[in-house]
Amino acid sequence: MKPSHVDKNNRPHMVPIGDKKTTRRTARAQAVVCFPPGWLQRIDAETLETEKGPIAHTAILAGILAAKKTGDLIPLCHTIALNHCHLDVTLRNDSEISIESRVEADHHTGVEMEALTAVSIAALTVYDMCKALGHDIQITDIRLLEKTGGKKTYRLNAP
Amino acid sequence: MKPSHVDKNNRPHMVPIGDKKTTRRTARAQAVVCFPPGWLQRIDAETLETEKGPIAHTAILAGILAAKKTGDLIPLCHTIALNHCHLDVTLRNDSEISIESRVEADHHTGVEMEALTAVSIAALTVYDMCKALGHDIQITDIRLLEKTGGKKTYRLNAP
Amino acid sequence: MKPSHVDKNNRPHMVPIGDKKTTRRTARAQAVVCFPPGWLQRIDAETLETEKGPIAHTAILAGILAAKKTGDLIPLCHTIALNHCHLDVTLRNDSEISIESRVEADHHTGVEMEALTAVSIAALTVYDMCKALGHDIQITDIRLLEKTGGKKTYRLNAP
Amino acid sequence: MKPSHVDKNNRPHMVPIGDKKTTRRTARAQAVVCFPPGWLQRIDAETLETEKGPIAHTAILAGILAAKKTGDLIPLCHTIALNHCHLDVTLRNDSEISIESRVEADHHTGVEMEALTAVSIAALTVYDMCKALGHDIQITDIRLLEKTGGKKTYRLNAP
Amino acid sequence: MKPSHVDKNNRPHMVPIGDKKTTRRTARAQAVVCFPPGWLQRIDAETLETEKGPIAHTAILAGILAAKKTGDLIPLCHTIALNHCHLDVTLRNDSEISIESRVEADHHTGVEMEALTAVSIAALTVYDMCKALGHDIQITDIRLLEKTGGKKTYRLNAP
Amino acid sequence: MKPSHVDKNNRPHMVPIGDKKTTRRTARAQAVVCFPPGWLQRIDAETLETEKGPIAHTAILAGILAAKKTGDLIPLCHTIALNHCHLDVTLRNDSEISIESRVEADHHTGVEMEALTAVSIAALTVYDMCKALGHDIQITDIRLLEKTGGKKTYRLNAP
Repeated sequence: MKPSHVDKNNRPHMVPIGDKKTTRRTARAQAVVCFPPGWLQRIDAETLETEKGPIAHTAILAGILAAKKTGDLIPLCHTIALNHCHLDVTLRNDSEISIESRVEADHHTGVEMEALTAVSIAALTVYDMCKALGHDIQITDIRLLEKTGGKKTYRLNAP
Repeated sequence: MKPSHVDKNNRPHMVPIGDKKTTRRTARAQAVVCFPPGWLQRIDAETLETEKGPIAHTAILAGILAAKKTGDLIPLCHTIALNHCHLDVTLRNDSEISIESRVEADHHTGVEMEALTAVSIAALTVYDMCKALGHDIQITDIRLLEKTGGKKTYRLNAP
Repeated sequence: MKPSHVDKNNRPHMVPIGDKKTTRRTARAQAVVCFPPGWLQRIDAETLETEKGPIAHTAILAGILAAKKTGDLIPLCHTIALNHCHLDVTLRNDSEISIESRVEADHHTGVEMEALTAVSIAALTVYDMCKALGHDIQITDIRLLEKTGGKKTYRLNAP
Repeated sequence: MKPSHVDKNNRPHMVPIGDKKTTRRTARAQAVVCFPPGWLQRIDAETLETEKGPIAHTAILAGILAAKKTGDLIPLCHTIALNHCHLDVTLRNDSEISIESRVEADHHTGVEMEALTAVSIAALTVYDMCKALGHDIQITDIRLLEKTGGKKTYRLNAP
Repeated sequence: MKPSHVDKNNRPHMVPIGDKKTTRRTARAQAVVCFPPGWLQRIDAETLETEKGPIAHTAILAGILAAKKTGDLIPLCHTIALNHCHLDVTLRNDSEISIESRVEADHHTGVEMEALTAVSIAALTVYDMCKALGHDIQITDIRLLEKTGGKKTYRLNAP
Repeated sequence: MKPSHVDKNNRPHMVPIGDKKTTRRTARAQAVVCFPPGWLQRIDAETLETEKGPIAHTAILAGILAAKKTGDLIPLCHTIALNHCHLDVTLRNDSEISIESRVEADHHTGVEMEALTAVSIAALTVYDMCKALGHDIQITDIRLLEKTGGKKTYRLNAP
């Protein structure tokens, strides 16, 4: 088979969405930033505080700004005016910071790439702000958690 | 400790680089796109061909364009004029597409975020072009492979 | 109280607008560029002519382009497709150039930030083009003049 | 007469489109890249292959990305969310590569500038990738082929 | 006289800087956001805290990102790779939030427009985040505080 | 042969420029906007005036802004900080508006794509502002006039 983003002549191809219905679309995605054991303890509690420290705030804002420019970053994505983009940054345990996004729009096509772009850029921002600790940091588990409003609903099975 | 990107008042902070030496900086990074077993076999060989198919070409170009705008995506990164940005997209096995970047600049600061941004956006582009197959795709193992030209050289230990 | 752009955990927060009604939204804003007495007289009349000189034209175009990218500049603003953006540049007296914008869209949320961004960037453009005269220039009185189409209409009292 | 993009005071002017009807708008445009006789034969067939070689792929993607940012490039254009943007790159004869775009949106105004911007940037991309051959390359015949959905339909007479 | 940004034919004109010396350039600028008396007291102390609350963090990041794209916002500005951009957000008294920027680059031309753009966009961001309180907010006193490294040094007299 | 922008595996490829010498680079390019006979006479002389009318001013500014973002538009171009970008818009005869650009930078690579992008976007802007007259407008003769500072100097033979 050919994926929808490749045409019969094997060229990159933007999917026409004019005949799809405009509906309320939502998507949720996640990314995890993994640090070697002990690294995160070296950071000031107040700085790391994922509810309101500067690292979490910067990552949240970078993710929101990136979600808004998904159509400029992923060549075959459509430009979509979002109703909402929310990010959570959570210190999951002593070596993982988890990022989750929730995006909503009323459009002819889904917003899963917006949700995935938001968590990816937010994770890179966490990496950037912590890289003075060293470069053995890894971004992993970038995936869609849920998607509603299109022909098919998707929900990731709990691991 | 406070990471270098947070100031003593706990605010997000751009690191001043004016007094660092301009040297030849390089960085290499990778990302892996993982598919459930069997999915990739459903795609036309010619389309998937990671040497020259449309998926690889689109991912390579998205990665290069993203590397050039790293400073616009990661809030505390500096804008850097790159000498070079190269991406490889490889079908590693029947469920993994691996992406590797190599970036070079002559600047006061390193280009690791450029290399990491390139592979991240290239991986999201592969996801976008294959997502018609389903959403159980995952982007993982985004990490720095090597970094030269600054105070410290970094090289990832082989796994 | 917490402003609408901060969530209960005290993090920056994009206001969800999906459930607001799409209506015709308008906003008008102003900015004033103030020069020391006598400076503006040193500029060629034809150049300064705020109806059609190059300074006014450049400021108008910079303001329109900026209004269109408000969502990329102000992190928690939504991306809005504008129906219209108009700017007036007026030589108010011998030391003040006044800039006024009028923006319109059909959207779930207001366009006041677009109107304010337009006049701010237009004012910075006037500053840039005149700064060879000296740097004792000041941009002041950036405010909303009127806003219609949302839950509340706003109109600035005449001073 | 004054064109619609200039106001009565002779200033650049964005046309207000709020009162125009939202309809399905389409546009098709073309550009031609002309090479001196014999040049194109020097390029590897596989590279040049306009159906699926790297030159065609890069030009197609550059054109699609440019169409999406027309409102950021052409100062008085409106930002339009496109339903679709398709480009064809064809080796017309031994000295001409022809580029054709087809754009669609549901909006208050036409998408002809999006179609024209797409072919222009795609043509510049072909130029960029081939310029190592020499600089006697020329981009020509950029024009609208068809436009539907507004007050007037336009169709170029066959030459 | 004609300002440097207008040519002899009265057209907008980018100043050629190739023959100016590359030196260390710095600039500092400020903006003030003024609220009606009593408004700021209605905001949660923790939210408003200008050292580390979400409003200050968002404004700082918006200002840094804007400084990096000054050349894309102000039509006749040059693109400059900054060494550093720092912003302070201070609650000056019960009705004023003051914003100050400090920018540094090694370049042929000054960075005063970068410093002014940073404070302007940061001030608009504070406005955006507080506008749920009402629209009687005003941005004022945008001016250069200091500029070093070019032919002339500038320092604002204390008021 | 393979052009320099395609690698041995036939993939799009950014040319590494780190080992090229930084020298003063200049380029000049042109584009022509052709109108059917008689059309231009229908436009107000003051509006059309290519020395200082709003059409010329808007085209000049669009061209300068586009030159600065060439690296974001042409996927394999490097980001280059320009010293200068100048555009001339000339009413060549009663059916042709000619646009000429001159670009300068000190860099490892040439600025011909910047010069060509500037005239292309300026020409599209003229088209946009005049299209209310009709769509039988054509952009043609986009080519390099001169290029200096690299290994080879190029100068177009007079036609």
